[in-house]
Amino acid sequence: MIVNDKQYQSIWHDKSQNKVYIIDQRALPFEYKTIALKTHKDAFWAISEMVVRGAPLIGITAAFGLYLWVKQNTYSKEGLLKAAEYLKRARPTAVNLAIDIDYMQERLLASKENHVQKALQLANEVDKIETEACSRIGDFGLPLIEAIWKKEKRTVNILTHCNAGWLACGDWGTATSPIYKAHQKGIPVHVWVDETRPRNQGARLTAWELKQAGVPYTVIPDNTGGHLMQHNNVDLVFVGSDRTTRNGDVANKIGTYLKALAAKDNNIPFYVALPSTTFDFNMTDGIKNIPIEERGSDEVREMECLVKGEIVIAKLMPADTIAANYGFDVTPARLVSGLITERGICEANELSILSLFPEYK
Amino acid sequence: MIVNDKQYQSIWHDKSQNKVYIIDQRALPFEYKTIALKTHKDAFWAISEMVVRGAPLIGITAAFGLYLWVKQNTYSKEGLLKAAEYLKRARPTAVNLAIDIDYMQERLLASKENHVQKALQLANEVDKIETEACSRIGDFGLPLIEAIWKKEKRTVNILTHCNAGWLACGDWGTATSPIYKAHQKGIPVHVWVDETRPRNQGARLTAWELKQAGVPYTVIPDNTGGHLMQHNNVDLVFVGSDRTTRNGDVANKIGTYLKALAAKDNNIPFYVALPSTTFDFNMTDGIKNIPIEERGSDEVREMECLVKGEIVIAKLMPADTIAANYGFDVTPARLVSGLITERGICEANELSILSLFPEYK
Repeated sequence: MIVNDKQYQSIWHDKSQNKVYIIDQRALPFEYKTIALKTHKDAFWAISEMVVRGAPLIGITAAFGLYLWVKQNTYSKEGLLKAAEYLKRARPTAVNLAIDIDYMQERLLASKENHVQKALQLANEVDKIETEACSRIGDFGLPLIEAIWKKEKRTVNILTHCNAGWLACGDWGTATSPIYKAHQKGIPVHVWVDETRPRNQGARLTAWELKQAGVPYTVIPDNTGGHLMQHNNVDLVFVGSDRTTRNGDVANKIGTYLKALAAKDNNIPFYVALPSTTFDFNMTDGIKNIPIEERGSDEVREMECLVKGEIVIAKLMPADTIAANYGFDVTPARLVSGLITERGICEANELSILSLFPEYK
Repeated sequence: MIVNDKQYQSIWHDKSQNKVYIIDQRALPFEYKTIALKTHKDAFWAISEMVVRGAPLIGITAAFGLYLWVKQNTYSKEGLLKAAEYLKRARPTAVNLAIDIDYMQERLLASKENHVQKALQLANEVDKIETEACSRIGDFGLPLIEAIWKKEKRTVNILTHCNAGWLACGDWGTATSPIYKAHQKGIPVHVWVDETRPRNQGARLTAWELKQAGVPYTVIPDNTGGHLMQHNNVDLVFVGSDRTTRNGDVANKIGTYLKALAAKDNNIPFYVALPSTTFDFNMTDGIKNIPIEERGSDEVREMECLVKGEIVIAKLMPADTIAANYGFDVTPARLVSGLITERGICEANELSILSLFPEYK
């Protein structure tokens, strides 16, 4: 993604320094700073502390983490499996993490090449796969926006939740990919950006991304979407996913389910954009089976804010306030209008999903 | 409401000082401080700046505001009508404001007594009417909680949005009134408190109230309720209202509609607690007709927080972030299980509402 004539990536391997860099997403939008990951433990830390977040990026970061383990340790099958298992535990809900690690592990175990070179090549492959998938998601999602524009001859209003933008992926993003493609094509779009409490990835990351790209947006509290939909101010809802089951149940950032209900109640199309690495073909009941991460309640009580030009930890409520912090919820397939994948759009049911991904039949 | 052996009221007239006092709800829960209202303009300011908020308390504050006008001005019909109109404009959505002002105005115009004494008497009457209604709402709502406790023999989990507690009213509150009555009766209750962005009345006011009263609670981001309902962690939803139409459409704090949808989707009873002063018997289509306040977007971007023990204005996002701030939404009657009023519980439809309030037929 080009921002101010500079190429931005959410993660990259610097060949000259032989280091893996990430953007510290906790500091955005107040500060742009990068962090070098030196070990696989750094990668674990970056994922679990949400220095990087978003299902595809979590997968890519874990892949580079496994490369860092291979680079720094005497290679053994046992050691690799242990490091892979360790990295998979960094966060529980996004399935890309396990899928991308498995992709690396399988190929490393089968390889006779120099393991360090192979691991780097595979991590770059994972990055490329996730990123290209995002671009294709944009190509497949674009006609949904274009059709409304052609019919209505006015700005198309899209609501999104959390950050499923390029910061959550190598480039393009998932939910934002069709939006960026529409904007580049000159179709007038406006994005309602759900603030996305408690970590405010919408207000902090999605708004920053859209602003940099020149896409008109408005940040709204998470409570607002239903009201906007009732008053015909939303044409489409686009969200990402952290794990989608074989039957189309969608785990995504907490609060997504509420927007899906409102979209259904107001006959507004609700699309989920996801690369195939986000599918969990082993699961058929999202509400019962997808593990929902519970995080520390300090994330509800406190936030990194700007006070007199300085970044500080501000208490939004007293330190002894009892609070709970569930990271995700599951939107049942019946509320999903369609899944936008790198192979096309399908319905949120097993038959339609498998028609795009017959290898999982 | 007794807190730490001290009688707390959300507004009161101090006879010895002949002043009207309010609690500065913007400073809670970090600081408890009171403000003396000296003029009707002070009352207007306190309402519009949300120093006081909550439909019943807005009505009571406006009533005392009208008393302050009468006290400080040469009485004339024209002057009174002008002051009354002015106070009604302080906030648009809560109808108690207009209804309580009309109650005062009508009786003052008809009165031959000393207008100052009469105005004070009427303002106290408004306060008493709103407060007694809240207590009776609790009596009528209590059996809903008790029935679940008797059947399930475990803690009853209630979700509430915003603050419809005693801070929003003279005493008891509306949505919290059945909860306080249940707690006093020894029924184990636990309250899921929606944070309620952007002003966080749940996290700041409801949590403070419940903590003071010893009622177990957990603050949750507004995104969370749907997930909890899917997993059987919510038995009942109780919310207040700022205006309810003749057919049972409910305007309440933005985000209420999303919780009503989730309650419906999970077969969880969704009750609205309101005194009769919150009904607008002249309206029959809430979504089309209830005016929804739009407030400044700084309320989305900034918040009074605690940083190193000091109350400061913290920026949650950059000052140039584009944001929108709608104060309320309308929950259609079809999503409401029942209305808890001071005359009993009715269904959210004209026939049932008018069976309790036949004088509006």
